[in-house]
Amino acid sequence: MKNVFVHPLPIPIETEGLVVLVDILRATSTIVAALAEEAKVVKPVATIEDALLLREQGYLLAGERGGLPPEGFDYGNSPREAYRLAGQKVALTTTNGTRALGFVKQAKAVCAGSFLNLSAVVRFAERFDEVVVLCAGTEGHFSLEDFLFAGFLARELEEFATGNDAATVARHYARGVADPREEILLSKHALRLIELGLKDDVIFCGELDRYSVVPVLTKEGFVPLPGAS
Amino acid sequence: MKNVFVHPLPIPIETEGLVVLVDILRATSTIVAALAEEAKVVKPVATIEDALLLREQGYLLAGERGGLPPEGFDYGNSPREAYRLAGQKVALTTTNGTRALGFVKQAKAVCAGSFLNLSAVVRFAERFDEVVVLCAGTEGHFSLEDFLFAGFLARELEEFATGNDAATVARHYARGVADPREEILLSKHALRLIELGLKDDVIFCGELDRYSVVPVLTKEGFVPLPGAS
Repeated sequence: MKNVFVHPLPIPIETEGLVVLVDILRATSTIVAALAEEAKVVKPVATIEDALLLREQGYLLAGERGGLPPEGFDYGNSPREAYRLAGQKVALTTTNGTRALGFVKQAKAVCAGSFLNLSAVVRFAERFDEVVVLCAGTEGHFSLEDFLFAGFLARELEEFATGNDAATVARHYARGVADPREEILLSKHALRLIELGLKDDVIFCGELDRYSVVPVLTKEGFVPLPGAS
Repeated sequence: MKNVFVHPLPIPIETEGLVVLVDILRATSTIVAALAEEAKVVKPVATIEDALLLREQGYLLAGERGGLPPEGFDYGNSPREAYRLAGQKVALTTTNGTRALGFVKQAKAVCAGSFLNLSAVVRFAERFDEVVVLCAGTEGHFSLEDFLFAGFLARELEEFATGNDAATVARHYARGVADPREEILLSKHALRLIELGLKDDVIFCGELDRYSVVPVLTKEGFVPLPGAS
């Protein structure tokens, strides 16, 4: 039997299967959009200092702290800016999403999931016997938007049993949600981004299947899964 | 505006309002049943050693480790045994529920919630401006049954806004669940108790409003809220 697990907050993960990293607002939405818009690679880095070191190697710097671009960066963390990244190597540092990656201790593959590429992630995930959805959360707190995406994914993985309670709950929760765009507007993180003038980002991140790219993690960073887009 | 917060797993809590401790399988269900069956007091203790020290002060010892009674204890952690506790002082130690109490750093009041006394807890909670639902979880993992109860409580507290995303999600999740007894049978903790031969306990813990007692925490332990039953 295939199993899907959901972790509402980062915990150390070891799996022989696939880890789907989720930070809907906005890191994984931005990674998906950047690769779909033909960025060469998106390299997640934990700190601003790590990002600045990569500039000398020809990377554009993108990211946020407190929702806004760090000083000296080329871009923020907006998936709507992704078209500007075509042909570029990008170093991305964010408060939650890129840090959550540090919790992946072992996995056969790691990919980035978002509503923007849900169906493509589902098709990729179906190749594995175990799928672990790792929600980044928001500064250590449970995030509605990440858990909702986990539920949408668990719901679409119809042949998979739920391996833990969070997967069961997320799947049931998602069954009651028709439109993720409306639901994620209820999240505290969305409210904060709206206060920062970023409502268009929130709406963008709730769109289903705008892209068919699956960002997979390599030593170089996230690159498009061959043949997926 | 009144607010209800839900914490799916124990984190340090400070509130000027009410903390509702939730460990449906089975600590808070047992505390509720014990006081409803006229135990004098249920004193939660963190360790087996702490419980054994209380025996000399006339306490009956109840609790579990790995779902079963520790050696030398008078009772396990079954709410169905509660009628045997009438007139007694009880020391209770459990794997998750009694330990979660250690996370409550400040509160105006702390009570024990379960499906068995949901409506009584709702009436009590309505007296406060802030209600914090503290789910015990299962050995550090998200528990369906605790989160579902949190959702039922948040759903019934109609005048309360949801103060965090977990409260919003729990409320929406609960709206899709007609019968908590069926739903909690899907939890991993329920499956483990069923393997231990304790299915009747699981079914018992899913019954709505069997009792009207509200256990409130005092220096002596949990005692019935005056006038609530």
